Amino acid sequence: MPDLVAHGLLAGLDEIAGTGRDLRAGGYSRHLWQGADLELRAWFTERAERLGLAVEVDRNGNTWAWWGAPGPGAVVVGSHLDSVPGGGAYDGPLGVVSALDAVARLQAAGFVPTRPCAVLVFAEEEGSRFGVACLGSRLLSGAIDADAARRLTDRAGITLAEAAVTAGLDPAHLGRDQDAIDRIGIFLELHVEQGRGLIDLGEPLAVASSILAHGRWRLSFTGQGNHAGATLMTDRRDPMVAAAHAIVAVQQAALASPGARATVGRIEAVPGGTNVIPSAVHAWLDARAETDVQARAVVADITARLQAPHAGCSATVVEESWTSTVAFDAELAARLALVLGGIPALPTGAGHDAGVLASRVPTAMLFVRNPTGISHSPDEFATLEDCLAGVEALDTLLRELL
Amino acid sequence: MPDLVAHGLLAGLDEIAGTGRDLRAGGYSRHLWQGADLELRAWFTERAERLGLAVEVDRNGNTWAWWGAPGPGAVVVGSHLDSVPGGGAYDGPLGVVSALDAVARLQAAGFVPTRPCAVLVFAEEEGSRFGVACLGSRLLSGAIDADAARRLTDRAGITLAEAAVTAGLDPAHLGRDQDAIDRIGIFLELHVEQGRGLIDLGEPLAVASSILAHGRWRLSFTGQGNHAGATLMTDRRDPMVAAAHAIVAVQQAALASPGARATVGRIEAVPGGTNVIPSAVHAWLDARAETDVQARAVVADITARLQAPHAGCSATVVEESWTSTVAFDAELAARLALVLGGIPALPTGAGHDAGVLASRVPTAMLFVRNPTGISHSPDEFATLEDCLAGVEALDTLLRELL
Repeated sequence: MPDLVAHGLLAGLDEIAGTGRDLRAGGYSRHLWQGADLELRAWFTERAERLGLAVEVDRNGNTWAWWGAPGPGAVVVGSHLDSVPGGGAYDGPLGVVSALDAVARLQAAGFVPTRPCAVLVFAEEEGSRFGVACLGSRLLSGAIDADAARRLTDRAGITLAEAAVTAGLDPAHLGRDQDAIDRIGIFLELHVEQGRGLIDLGEPLAVASSILAHGRWRLSFTGQGNHAGATLMTDRRDPMVAAAHAIVAVQQAALASPGARATVGRIEAVPGGTNVIPSAVHAWLDARAETDVQARAVVADITARLQAPHAGCSATVVEESWTSTVAFDAELAARLALVLGGIPALPTGAGHDAGVLASRVPTAMLFVRNPTGISHSPDEFATLEDCLAGVEALDTLLRELL
Repeated sequence: MPDLVAHGLLAGLDEIAGTGRDLRAGGYSRHLWQGADLELRAWFTERAERLGLAVEVDRNGNTWAWWGAPGPGAVVVGSHLDSVPGGGAYDGPLGVVSALDAVARLQAAGFVPTRPCAVLVFAEEEGSRFGVACLGSRLLSGAIDADAARRLTDRAGITLAEAAVTAGLDPAHLGRDQDAIDRIGIFLELHVEQGRGLIDLGEPLAVASSILAHGRWRLSFTGQGNHAGATLMTDRRDPMVAAAHAIVAVQQAALASPGARATVGRIEAVPGGTNVIPSAVHAWLDARAETDVQARAVVADITARLQAPHAGCSATVVEESWTSTVAFDAELAARLALVLGGIPALPTGAGHDAGVLASRVPTAMLFVRNPTGISHSPDEFATLEDCLAGVEALDTLLRELL
């Protein structure tokens, strides 16, 4: 019944694509427990319940939809519905919609699972509201300290603990949820590819081999706030100039380390007036590399370059998050690739909840080709044909695993 | 009665200093028709009415407090109460408080003016909400096109026309107000100095000789939004890197033109996520120089430097405002300096409403020493002794002019 699947898949993505449209950022903005994220949580619950799945929100705000009774050894398939600011429609939602469609397809075929099964939607995968990517899976698995997490703040100064209360959660219960982890036998995440690997291979699907080591650092530059017109150039300590030199240094450090990536995508001048030399500028560094050692070396190189005094300003570097290189379960990846007819294995530079869970439970990922090679942008895309290939692959894998 | 004056002056500045305290920006934020600005408008009205002055708000949101009947040939003394984001307590308020205190002092001494007199508070002098500095005086004098002004937007996308309605003004009546201009015989603005001129001279007061040519330009860089982890460094078109090179070029261009100043104090990445290569970055340039030709040459130099392609991005430069060099009425400045015992004359790099009015009516400025030399920052300051010298000078000048 490819037509039914196609219709269901498209309808799901269309509904999501219409939610969280952000005219200012030029894409889609779906942030934890706000506007579009709340709408999509309601959408997911309604969709899952229509399939007869039992929906529960765990202590950390992740949503589970159970096919059959919850229990140990479950095959859990999922992804996330939140987005970066100004992101695309596929990063996250494709995995959720495909999981629901695969379950619908198995149900329509009369398939009866022999193990528990759940579709899982992780909270705050992009870290767009509270700054830490994969926050829902990090809390669930204990990869982030619960006290530190509770103190995280959004751009309006609201703490995660405060936001959790608004979302109907008890902030005291945020953190490692061993009972929930113990139920997972295998975790499987389908995701749109975020690079050009499948374009280059001419293939629609791949399994994931590894995730680059990656982290986030806040680079802060402090100078002397002053009048933009009355202050001579030679009397200034302008942290914007120091930040500019740092951004150039970030690019140079990454280019000097083959395969590494380093980005400044967010910057804030304090106070931020056109006619004011800022007193401080904050720039957020995202750095990644194949190994932990290489990623750490790139950040050390950047930090060293910041020590060269620019514009009489001081610079500090604060680590906000860190994730070591993830090697997915090689045996599981090989088995799934074989079941799918020998599809290729690819590494990825993007972090995923699957990467966080990989240290706790057998975990695998499936990538769907992105013909633009662009992600975290409204230009990210997957053809209907490739999306359907993804759903069929999930169907096949669930038959194999359930 | 210096004690009374001191008490009144301090009380006024204290009240203002407690209004618009902005913990995030680390100073005071008082923006047009919002929070602290509305409170200070009410404060000014109450203070002026307590002195028996008749308060009126003109078509452009500027507030006039008349001592005696309004009429032509008036001596108008004033400044502004709004601030840059994270600014100080003195820039603007010192002139308003000193004008009210000088009137109070003359009244207490039984002085009877022979000409009309008003204390004038200009709206949006800093341009912090709608991006154009001296907006109130530009509208009043016709120095900005009323249609263009009505279309200005704040950071939330609200137009000046919409905000005017909320403030009780008719947006159709914004713009040149010849009747109001025709009443002004002389305009006089007292202001805290925003540089180090009076520190270097060892003097508490000076008259203004001129204001540097100055303007604002929006520099926009467009690249390709993409994933910060999955996109190879060599595949990027990252506008943050292009903006960083531009900020360095801004500093270099200003340093290469003696006496010129160029600043980037405000920057915005779109969409602004840590794990997202931006699709666009906007940086606002404030550039100033002694002559129009020099200021234009600095901006042309910066524009030329932006044409060197960085990171595969395109750059555009849009002028948002421009003010030619202002030479204050030399004869009036010399007369006032003489009345005050031969105080010095100083140029300034800061724009002022007095500079906008100078092309329409005889205009003079009085600067009060700022012992930090810092402005547009909570560190700007004036000693009580110097503030009192300023009030006494206004008292003397009003006796001379009225």
